[in-house]
Amino acid sequence: MDSYPLLEQINSPADVKALPENELPQLAEEARRCLISTVSQTGGHLASNLGVVELTIALHRVFNSPHDKIVWDVGHQIYTHKLLTGRFKDFGTLRQDGGISGFSNPAESEHDPFYSGHASVSVSAAYGIARANLLKGKKNYTIAVVGDGAFTGGEIFEGLNNAGGERTRLIVILNDNEMSISENVGSLANHLAVIKARPSYFRTKARIERGLNLIPLIGVHLSNGLFRLKTTLKRALYKNSTMFEELGFRYMGPVDGHNIPVLCDALEAAKTAHYPILLHIKTTKGKGYEYAESDPALFHGISRFDIDTGEFKNSRGFSNAFGDAICGFAEKDARICAVTAAMAIGTGLDKFSEKFPDRFFDVGIAEQHAVTFCSGLAKGGMVPVFAVYSAFLQRTYDQLVHDVALQKLKVIICVDRCGFVTGDGETHHGLLDVPMLNTIPDVIIYSPADYAELSRCLYRAIYKDPDGIIAVRLPKGCEPDIPEDLSPGESDFDVFGEENAETSIVTYGRVYAAAAAAYRKLDDTKLIKLNRIKPIDPAAVSAALSCKRVFFFEESERSGGAGAEFGYLLSRAGFKGDFILHAVENKFVPQSEDKILLKRYGFDEEGIISEVQSSKFKVQSSKQT
Amino acid sequence: MDSYPLLEQINSPADVKALPENELPQLAEEARRCLISTVSQTGGHLASNLGVVELTIALHRVFNSPHDKIVWDVGHQIYTHKLLTGRFKDFGTLRQDGGISGFSNPAESEHDPFYSGHASVSVSAAYGIARANLLKGKKNYTIAVVGDGAFTGGEIFEGLNNAGGERTRLIVILNDNEMSISENVGSLANHLAVIKARPSYFRTKARIERGLNLIPLIGVHLSNGLFRLKTTLKRALYKNSTMFEELGFRYMGPVDGHNIPVLCDALEAAKTAHYPILLHIKTTKGKGYEYAESDPALFHGISRFDIDTGEFKNSRGFSNAFGDAICGFAEKDARICAVTAAMAIGTGLDKFSEKFPDRFFDVGIAEQHAVTFCSGLAKGGMVPVFAVYSAFLQRTYDQLVHDVALQKLKVIICVDRCGFVTGDGETHHGLLDVPMLNTIPDVIIYSPADYAELSRCLYRAIYKDPDGIIAVRLPKGCEPDIPEDLSPGESDFDVFGEENAETSIVTYGRVYAAAAAAYRKLDDTKLIKLNRIKPIDPAAVSAALSCKRVFFFEESERSGGAGAEFGYLLSRAGFKGDFILHAVENKFVPQSEDKILLKRYGFDEEGIISEVQSSKFKVQSSKQT
Repeated sequence: MDSYPLLEQINSPADVKALPENELPQLAEEARRCLISTVSQTGGHLASNLGVVELTIALHRVFNSPHDKIVWDVGHQIYTHKLLTGRFKDFGTLRQDGGISGFSNPAESEHDPFYSGHASVSVSAAYGIARANLLKGKKNYTIAVVGDGAFTGGEIFEGLNNAGGERTRLIVILNDNEMSISENVGSLANHLAVIKARPSYFRTKARIERGLNLIPLIGVHLSNGLFRLKTTLKRALYKNSTMFEELGFRYMGPVDGHNIPVLCDALEAAKTAHYPILLHIKTTKGKGYEYAESDPALFHGISRFDIDTGEFKNSRGFSNAFGDAICGFAEKDARICAVTAAMAIGTGLDKFSEKFPDRFFDVGIAEQHAVTFCSGLAKGGMVPVFAVYSAFLQRTYDQLVHDVALQKLKVIICVDRCGFVTGDGETHHGLLDVPMLNTIPDVIIYSPADYAELSRCLYRAIYKDPDGIIAVRLPKGCEPDIPEDLSPGESDFDVFGEENAETSIVTYGRVYAAAAAAYRKLDDTKLIKLNRIKPIDPAAVSAALSCKRVFFFEESERSGGAGAEFGYLLSRAGFKGDFILHAVENKFVPQSEDKILLKRYGFDEEGIISEVQSSKFKVQSSKQT
Repeated sequence: MDSYPLLEQINSPADVKALPENELPQLAEEARRCLISTVSQTGGHLASNLGVVELTIALHRVFNSPHDKIVWDVGHQIYTHKLLTGRFKDFGTLRQDGGISGFSNPAESEHDPFYSGHASVSVSAAYGIARANLLKGKKNYTIAVVGDGAFTGGEIFEGLNNAGGERTRLIVILNDNEMSISENVGSLANHLAVIKARPSYFRTKARIERGLNLIPLIGVHLSNGLFRLKTTLKRALYKNSTMFEELGFRYMGPVDGHNIPVLCDALEAAKTAHYPILLHIKTTKGKGYEYAESDPALFHGISRFDIDTGEFKNSRGFSNAFGDAICGFAEKDARICAVTAAMAIGTGLDKFSEKFPDRFFDVGIAEQHAVTFCSGLAKGGMVPVFAVYSAFLQRTYDQLVHDVALQKLKVIICVDRCGFVTGDGETHHGLLDVPMLNTIPDVIIYSPADYAELSRCLYRAIYKDPDGIIAVRLPKGCEPDIPEDLSPGESDFDVFGEENAETSIVTYGRVYAAAAAAYRKLDDTKLIKLNRIKPIDPAAVSAALSCKRVFFFEESERSGGAGAEFGYLLSRAGFKGDFILHAVENKFVPQSEDKILLKRYGFDEEGIISEVQSSKFKVQSSKQT
């Protein structure tokens, strides 16, 4: 049995403050052990969370949450924060149905001011809060904690550019654990960073000048004016601090992010500034778990694993099948390029990156750039394939419209994590890509049900379809079982069953497996499987036209989806029967497992049968009245 | 009559190259005169175009378009480029129906590699082209020309961050005309910038060191290593160059952007680098036209004007009415904040900015940040109103979903330039906001038809509606004439006409005026005006349910629009009549005037009558067969 004597006593930040300083290393050790143990059972984000254990303790020693607001950029650094803000006892339910969220979640705790499943928004949000505090005369602090990965997202720069120079109590902490944003200059720098940000630093020029003269390398004869001194010093010592200074932030750092007393000193110093502060800390991603430290990218967002061996317990399914397929095409076709926004492993492009390094582009967490960059590649004669999670493709709506569709350039989007996604919750389900893409002229969308169909769709996209956006959608996980005689075919849609059946079931994607199973058990029903969901083949609509009842099952938001389009086309073709569209409607879907959600929202075999039978009954009874 | 002896002879970049150098100032003068004269007649972007006349001439002297690709960020600097690439004779049709586009347009000329009506995408696109060239072994150059305004957009940083350090033939020109991105250090800097980028600079350390020793301020004793020298020099001389160096670009500049020989030297030097170059030029926005120089923001995107007086020839309509209304509310309510992404005048917020400077935020061309920032303000207890053009709201889809709707924070979006927009073409119509917003849970959308309704909608949004996103949509231009007895009321919808009419017309927004006029002339027809278009009041659907034919007119993309929703609700309510949805479908709408487009797409009185009458006939005839 795991034992957490200190963690068990922590019910709020006040308890963290009450601990004697010499017990804090033990608290960190317990937190780290709890993270590894829990994530090995639940899956989740491990490496990033292991990196910020000490930072989180220091934040709760120095600041006063929830009065001071800590905004974690991409919540996947937030686990220790949850352990220290009253959620230790429930932490075993992490990422489970009804359990503790793997991200920041205001519905869960007053200590989580914002949802944060998408990257690079924290500075903008925190600046908004800080600015509101200023307008209201409140003295509270707002802290944004941003990993260096999120710094590759443009919105961070938009936020820094805006917040810089304003007299708000905003502190941005850059958690630098991976990219070489700066040289690590060790303990002198830690020490200096603290000295530099003390109030006197901002007040007393003379004292600073004396301090600087202690540093070799920079002579006094250059010291004409505080500004030049400060920046020259920093530029000499900290290669990249100037960017933040130019954006109007006071830069502090780098600071050892695993040294709690130094972190506390730095944060205390930052509190005194009354200016926006950029505190740069250096941490080790995966700190304290050997396997995660040696391969932090692999241990970023993970499934369950064996603590002793570091081995994962599931297979990679559709993403892997996509990776294999695209490698196969790229082998013979030198035009094919693969682009990812910091998700090479998640989207199955790791093989491609090894085999075709010249044609592989990881652009950082910069989906907008990724799409426009693809349009440039296409303009230059390449065939770019951008693999991206559905939820993050939302970042690129305007670029899809303006830079790709309008230009009529062939850009293939592999939309991963479509539909319900296990564990990550509200912010990560892929329920909006179909409606979003449906609004864009001339887009083609495929939503394959198994690996073989996936490969065929990619082939069509690369070699058969006209130029423009072609989206190929994948769910997370493995292909479902589909009876061989109901396997998807090679055309735009398939129809199974009697031509003059009274009822038809229409669907696409992974729900097709459940629909096929339901179809076996339903009388007088035909089954229509859409292979290309935009544009919908008019013949697929004709196939349903003779039915009295058409049921469309769609693992997507309803408004603007493929089902809505099918219904519209039916109505235009003169259909006067009942059209029942079963989709997700006007709803953020909470965290759970995909299997549970598919069942809960009626997309499993039982749900489909029940919908068809109960609606049939309803229609009959309404006819009787 | 205007006379353009040199411009008339220019049919391609080759003709620009063939001119003797001493005639170039005259070419610049003619181009500038042609811009002022044309835009005074057509409206368009004046100040930004006047600033880059010399740059454009220099680009075509040094580079070889279309083999070298010039990507203009936001095409509104592109007019001179059009004059020099074979479009002088047609330039009088600028922004007119069927005429020359006011932005970059590949359909118009091989010299326009990309559409570019939305800001901050040029570096990403150019890097894609440059990277494709590298993969294909092509030696062509790719040039992105970016105004400093577009540098506030995050995608520029995503692009620079990616392109930096790669050995592509990419040249980014920062056209610095407004923000104080750097100090202007005059002719020494111009001279130095050219010296510095010559090939020797990149090859011969010793020579550079000798050169540097000529500069006072920096002593030789600091010169340990080329890198430190170079950056120290630049940091001393050019306050902000380091940001670009840190992003992996070689920085050159600032250069006088109105001196053609210096520009040509700088561009020639940039060509020799084989590294990504950031060439920083200084220009005067509005250069050569007194009124534009003295108020470049006012002369940014403008309507027709009188050359002699600088006075504009139209009124500001809905945007102004919004500005007045929001000032009225803000007068009494200190929570109300207004946010714009560099469009204070365009969105009618100029008055607000003067009256309530503490609560007014121009965040730069940074729509994503604007939305997340609003969510922060709302979290802090303020009531933010973000005024933004419909086409640019597309940039914020993910932020609307993730940072506002999911957080259930009250953020009011004033969506300006909805529907067809005069002059700006494909990239600026506001046809996608309704489908986009319709996919987001719990959004409320109003689409008022006149100023009085606009004010009522804002009131409801601020004081009556629940927290979340509330969008209030406006067209560009003035309110249409609506007969008083058909004026929009205060509830969610209005119905006019006989309860048991055979036909109903449903619509919203400015099309309502035409629908009301058509309604007057049609027999046996009722008129339903939606005031709140999401969620649609079920009673509005019930009001149409008894009709045999329901016509929905919607100045929006069809898929996912309010009409599609109305049709779906009708079908769910058991409607078995004909539902005819008249909208814009799967189409990028070319440049024209809004009045022409409303007529062309059947949204004027005549079009509505004709649709209702012809469809009635069609249905009858299909019943006969």
